Amino acid sequence: MTKIAILGGSGYTAVELIKIVLRHPKAKIEAITSRQEGTPAIAELHPSLLDRIDLRCEPFDPDALKKRGVQCAFGCLPHGVSAESVKPLLERGIRVVDLSADYRLRDPKVFEAYYGEPPHDVANLSKAVYGLPELYGEQIESAQLVANPGCYPQTAILGLAPLVANKLIELKGIIVNSCSGVSGAGRTPKLTTHFPECNESVSAYNVGKHRHTPEIEQALTDAAGEPVEVLFVPHLVPMDRGIFSTIYATPTSEVTEAELTKLLREYYSKAPFVRVRDTLPATKDTAHTNYLDLCVKVARGKIVILACEDNLIRGASGVAVQNFNRMFGYEETMGLV
Amino acid sequence: MTKIAILGGSGYTAVELIKIVLRHPKAKIEAITSRQEGTPAIAELHPSLLDRIDLRCEPFDPDALKKRGVQCAFGCLPHGVSAESVKPLLERGIRVVDLSADYRLRDPKVFEAYYGEPPHDVANLSKAVYGLPELYGEQIESAQLVANPGCYPQTAILGLAPLVANKLIELKGIIVNSCSGVSGAGRTPKLTTHFPECNESVSAYNVGKHRHTPEIEQALTDAAGEPVEVLFVPHLVPMDRGIFSTIYATPTSEVTEAELTKLLREYYSKAPFVRVRDTLPATKDTAHTNYLDLCVKVARGKIVILACEDNLIRGASGVAVQNFNRMFGYEETMGLV
Amino acid sequence: MTKIAILGGSGYTAVELIKIVLRHPKAKIEAITSRQEGTPAIAELHPSLLDRIDLRCEPFDPDALKKRGVQCAFGCLPHGVSAESVKPLLERGIRVVDLSADYRLRDPKVFEAYYGEPPHDVANLSKAVYGLPELYGEQIESAQLVANPGCYPQTAILGLAPLVANKLIELKGIIVNSCSGVSGAGRTPKLTTHFPECNESVSAYNVGKHRHTPEIEQALTDAAGEPVEVLFVPHLVPMDRGIFSTIYATPTSEVTEAELTKLLREYYSKAPFVRVRDTLPATKDTAHTNYLDLCVKVARGKIVILACEDNLIRGASGVAVQNFNRMFGYEETMGLV
Amino acid sequence: MTKIAILGGSGYTAVELIKIVLRHPKAKIEAITSRQEGTPAIAELHPSLLDRIDLRCEPFDPDALKKRGVQCAFGCLPHGVSAESVKPLLERGIRVVDLSADYRLRDPKVFEAYYGEPPHDVANLSKAVYGLPELYGEQIESAQLVANPGCYPQTAILGLAPLVANKLIELKGIIVNSCSGVSGAGRTPKLTTHFPECNESVSAYNVGKHRHTPEIEQALTDAAGEPVEVLFVPHLVPMDRGIFSTIYATPTSEVTEAELTKLLREYYSKAPFVRVRDTLPATKDTAHTNYLDLCVKVARGKIVILACEDNLIRGASGVAVQNFNRMFGYEETMGLV
Repeated sequence: MTKIAILGGSGYTAVELIKIVLRHPKAKIEAITSRQEGTPAIAELHPSLLDRIDLRCEPFDPDALKKRGVQCAFGCLPHGVSAESVKPLLERGIRVVDLSADYRLRDPKVFEAYYGEPPHDVANLSKAVYGLPELYGEQIESAQLVANPGCYPQTAILGLAPLVANKLIELKGIIVNSCSGVSGAGRTPKLTTHFPECNESVSAYNVGKHRHTPEIEQALTDAAGEPVEVLFVPHLVPMDRGIFSTIYATPTSEVTEAELTKLLREYYSKAPFVRVRDTLPATKDTAHTNYLDLCVKVARGKIVILACEDNLIRGASGVAVQNFNRMFGYEETMGLV
Repeated sequence: MTKIAILGGSGYTAVELIKIVLRHPKAKIEAITSRQEGTPAIAELHPSLLDRIDLRCEPFDPDALKKRGVQCAFGCLPHGVSAESVKPLLERGIRVVDLSADYRLRDPKVFEAYYGEPPHDVANLSKAVYGLPELYGEQIESAQLVANPGCYPQTAILGLAPLVANKLIELKGIIVNSCSGVSGAGRTPKLTTHFPECNESVSAYNVGKHRHTPEIEQALTDAAGEPVEVLFVPHLVPMDRGIFSTIYATPTSEVTEAELTKLLREYYSKAPFVRVRDTLPATKDTAHTNYLDLCVKVARGKIVILACEDNLIRGASGVAVQNFNRMFGYEETMGLV
Repeated sequence: MTKIAILGGSGYTAVELIKIVLRHPKAKIEAITSRQEGTPAIAELHPSLLDRIDLRCEPFDPDALKKRGVQCAFGCLPHGVSAESVKPLLERGIRVVDLSADYRLRDPKVFEAYYGEPPHDVANLSKAVYGLPELYGEQIESAQLVANPGCYPQTAILGLAPLVANKLIELKGIIVNSCSGVSGAGRTPKLTTHFPECNESVSAYNVGKHRHTPEIEQALTDAAGEPVEVLFVPHLVPMDRGIFSTIYATPTSEVTEAELTKLLREYYSKAPFVRVRDTLPATKDTAHTNYLDLCVKVARGKIVILACEDNLIRGASGVAVQNFNRMFGYEETMGLV
Repeated sequence: MTKIAILGGSGYTAVELIKIVLRHPKAKIEAITSRQEGTPAIAELHPSLLDRIDLRCEPFDPDALKKRGVQCAFGCLPHGVSAESVKPLLERGIRVVDLSADYRLRDPKVFEAYYGEPPHDVANLSKAVYGLPELYGEQIESAQLVANPGCYPQTAILGLAPLVANKLIELKGIIVNSCSGVSGAGRTPKLTTHFPECNESVSAYNVGKHRHTPEIEQALTDAAGEPVEVLFVPHLVPMDRGIFSTIYATPTSEVTEAELTKLLREYYSKAPFVRVRDTLPATKDTAHTNYLDLCVKVARGKIVILACEDNLIRGASGVAVQNFNRMFGYEETMGLV
């Protein structure tokens, strides 16, 4: 049994994480911290947890967490804030899965270009392993610090990695057109996520400059062994959860759907949560699960990859537990199926 | 042609009002005021108005409005704030349709009991006519100040008025169970109206103590000639617009659906926007219109009235224009069909 | 380990049941039958099951099920059809949890009045136990045949049972006003459940004559020891899942919210899936869980009970597994938390 | 005043058309035909029309329509069926706006390749003018037969026409990624449009082979004067109405957003319903209007055009009336603003 702590209990990734861990036979929630005033019961912040967990939120105290035997902390805080908690935990030998963006990008200049400020903990950047288990699984196993991946990037990276790794597509000019449910925007009310504004509407945002762009490129460049460049255009669609990415790439030579499907199947033959499908996927097929569905088509001289997932589970808290399982030697699917 | 002003341009009732007036052959928007800083184009606040109206918001200046020939102002401000604008307009002889709650309740003590503070303009309360044209049509014609009715109350009042007026139901123990789309909560983002919180969910709020309760009772007491008491329970449902009220009353003597339907038809024979139906209504049948649909059933010893409307049109801006039409001698349906 | 069969694999209750049983440590799906042509993989009918279950649907063959060691069958077929499968299974000593309405009503005349035809298996009616574990738990333990309760009735019955059992409310004139998500209508496409028809709309249906009415009355009459009568009005609201019932009753003597809340808490002190709350519930708090949330208010001389649940889990497949657990001596919450 | 007929009254384009024509000061609905049995009141098929129109559906009789003075018929029937009605009307000198696909593609072989059968009325193909007023306005004015454009194609064609006409982008490799609300699928219930299937889900369909592909290419080839090729990928998103197209093209030489925006503004300077915006559009901004919003971005070496509209108004019935206005010499915006 591994004692874990959750840092920042008030948001959507925290509540999903709690629900997963409650089902996990080898993990136990020892503490949930919050920057909120007082020590509200976590079930007060998230009524869906009533009668399911008895903990109250507590202020962040790394020494106390250490003393109480916490071995792993999950950071569910916003970037910037998160690094401030991660640092003292690492110093005390507590391993961390950080769901924020603070440790995802290796190059501080790239971080600064997209986030408008330098990373908050440059010193620990080199310790961080990018938490995409299908690509960085071995490194994750021994990592002290796992930078849990962004929601959008996982669809793009897992959809494209087998193709760039095998040089089947041109590495420039890749287009990632994504649609996300509204929970991806977090739990803080804003006009753009006010129900009567975003319901019954589709819109694009951050066209070509979303912060997940460099994350996609970093991982695909790793996979390709040379620079990959993507144009990423996210859209907001009126649903709670789910990301659907439609990815357009130019093949370097003629290839069939059957060949590509076979390649993807082989590439992910040991990945329990990647489902390579013959049929077109729908986000609903993956809702409330840790599965990421892929389908590949060839049309009009382009390769089209359809990729979808639940942005809160596979896109955040589910993959965090998948990483945790690898870090602590548990079955990769434990608590997740 | 009548020049009108709209006070408070940033909310949902304002944008709906603008769209209606743009189609109205006899009304012209002379000014839109806003408490926002600067003078933003109204189409900047509401992109749906792009290319449709060229006005910029301006600070409230009653003398300027008078000088520019404004004859009618529509108050789209929150209660409390609204009265502060209405007062100087009335002093200058500008007629007002106030969409806030400031002038709806005749008894200041009842207002205070439900709103937690006394009315902001007691002096003008006696001038105000409750703006439900089907019941107070004649008084509205000559009114200086019309207190536009609340969204929920219209369904309850129009559903019950013919029955209480004819003493067909007991006047105590009436239950009004209502469901509203989220736009009824206004345009200010809150956690309860944050998309991922209220989407895919139904909840009740303000059980038995919603501020629309005394408004329903006041109008029904007028219709009955003796005190009427209702238990009003509103619910939030995941849609943009629409109110559906299911009203339960106890008949004073045996009566059939056919008799009740006939009574309602006669009662509203001259009301162009009340549709008494033989089939069960759906809010979608009334969406984006000024119609209010009614259907009456008898079951298990109770009379059940189903009433629905679009909360932003019939429930606010549409009925405001219906009132305006009566006040200025235009055809009641002008701009509304 | 208990081998189970699922009869009728193509609908929503079947797919939810499969997902629950896949997590249940003591139940194993031995067979899934279907009336569809051929033997489609169950994951073909429900793509969300891809890579999670490998079974194909098979034709119904009670002897084969018996031979293969099936000890419990879950009927996910429409009423009428279901009884035809239940009969031969009971004859072979296979216990059944039937999710259809075929065995819910003890009085064949009442069934006929609401379903327009006599029950299809009158002979086994007396064997059936109504599968609401909080009220009929002991009988369920030894039952050969459990008539799994309807979705709406559970909210009404569990909300009202403590009050009628303690004679705190009048037994006539009870009103149950319910809102349901669209999955409650099943998986067969119809105009009323066609997305552009029911989305962004609320409507009532079967006012006062819905088939769940006698089911509510039968169970409450059991609890009260004398006849209870309810007026039940269901509504369709635009969401996938969730039922919210607002229940109105007249107290027989003065009583406070605090007293009623305490009573409910005591009544359900041993019920792991009934959550008596101090705060107003929302269907989303119960989504994808087997919890049923209750809250009680007193207003304007009425008792108002707010009750909600997930109609597919608590309202169907979850409570079916809860019944199964009791029947086979497993922990009541197994597979469900 | 021009008398019009509507062929096929039961679908969504018909009901939207009726609502527009009811507001049109110069058009009068003389007849609505239906293939349904009997002569149901049109308000029975569409309860939103109650009290707004008194007509009953009638069988199609071209001689009677001619005799009653019908000058224009709007075809709201499925392709194939539509041509059978259009033929006899043209023979009798009644002008037609056909909302089906029967006359959109000039080349019968292209039609057959995408629709699996030859066009049903080859003889009249050459008479048909493609009904996109911004590009074919003059021809529409004198046309006997207007082939009203598809919903998706309008966003793609109007977004790309100024660019291909000015040779600013490469004519191959254009990608049109579109999201549509569910009403685009029509009113016939199917599993894919059953609420619990498509709600809370995004999916792609007909990847690279949707029937609107050749329509887009035909119009853009006209605009460019040489062959244009697009890869079109449509998606279904959970909302009633609205199409959002994200269009990716490769510039032939360096160009800025400002230059492109200026070009679009000039190109559509006389088009009252095309709004070239500086801000990113949302489908909701165009909902229930005939406006089509465009915004252009340059990112990562690509031109990205964001285009959106209401699929039922601008995408079908609104543009049909816009065509009608041109055909009969009325102000282009009549009935539409």
